[in-house]
Amino acid sequence: MTDDPNNPNAFGIWPSEVATELPDKFDASLYFIGRIRTPWKQRKDCPKNARESDAICTIEIDPRWAAALTEIDTCTHLVVLYWMNRSRRDLVLQVPHHYRVPRGTFALRSPARPNPIAMSVVRLVRVDGNRLSVVGLDCLDGTPLLDIKPYFASTDAVAEAVVGWHAAGQKTE
Amino acid sequence: MTDDPNNPNAFGIWPSEVATELPDKFDASLYFIGRIRTPWKQRKDCPKNARESDAICTIEIDPRWAAALTEIDTCTHLVVLYWMNRSRRDLVLQVPHHYRVPRGTFALRSPARPNPIAMSVVRLVRVDGNRLSVVGLDCLDGTPLLDIKPYFASTDAVAEAVVGWHAAGQKTE
Repeated sequence: MTDDPNNPNAFGIWPSEVATELPDKFDASLYFIGRIRTPWKQRKDCPKNARESDAICTIEIDPRWAAALTEIDTCTHLVVLYWMNRSRRDLVLQVPHHYRVPRGTFALRSPARPNPIAMSVVRLVRVDGNRLSVVGLDCLDGTPLLDIKPYFASTDAVAEAVVGWHAAGQKTE
Repeated sequence: MTDDPNNPNAFGIWPSEVATELPDKFDASLYFIGRIRTPWKQRKDCPKNARESDAICTIEIDPRWAAALTEIDTCTHLVVLYWMNRSRRDLVLQVPHHYRVPRGTFALRSPARPNPIAMSVVRLVRVDGNRLSVVGLDCLDGTPLLDIKPYFASTDAVAEAVVGWHAAGQKTE
């Protein structure tokens, strides 16, 4: 039942992981504004990260929002926000795949987080009406779309950025 | 009343802007996990973008989530997601400041969008318990925090990205 979309604990919890008590109410609400179409129907098929695959994926925007795509075809790259709707939200320490050490949720890109909003930078290949063809996604087919933004190299690109725990792990593992 | 947080039309609408009818229900919900402290108490004081200011801002994470910051101090840069809670959500075409042409919401970084989630890339200066000192934010003091992620140059930095409408505007205006 691990791929049951109604199972909030689909990810499970491991011995060295730590969960917190969730707040008793929500503070704001989201609209799903479209769906992401990818070749990956199950978690195990998804690439480990977006640079592992050159697959062209399709972002389908609901007709209600189609006019909001005006001039998006002038952008080479986009920021895509989407909803990881199968993830548990209460983990504060978790053990990423291929590592044995529990790390803080905010030091990880895991989909399990208090607000499971994923962010990917994609290359825009083509616009056909309310459908965008893009390269750079690694999510499951049917993932709900939250937002699309133009990617500005001036504010969004930091080539020298380092994630220390990851860099150290790559040297030794 | 333009700064009334309960006014969903705080931004108003201009003659060449276009609004759509919002869906009749929401699809998912968010927790505010902390607050962003900045020097800017009113919209007019905010920098036009995050590269315009070297101000150190503070991200205060609610104690419930503090353990999720473990090892974040190994990161030089972070992705910060926050909630632009004063923005209207129904605009599909809008006229950005300093431009006369209406453009699609998804081609703009305006806070007015169906899901007003802002994304900023920040430099991490210091971690003190549940408080992060960062450079690179341009939002109002008290803005609700949604998420913090490590910034990976390998997937998030695209130095050659171009926003065509913006590049053209800079040449002529």
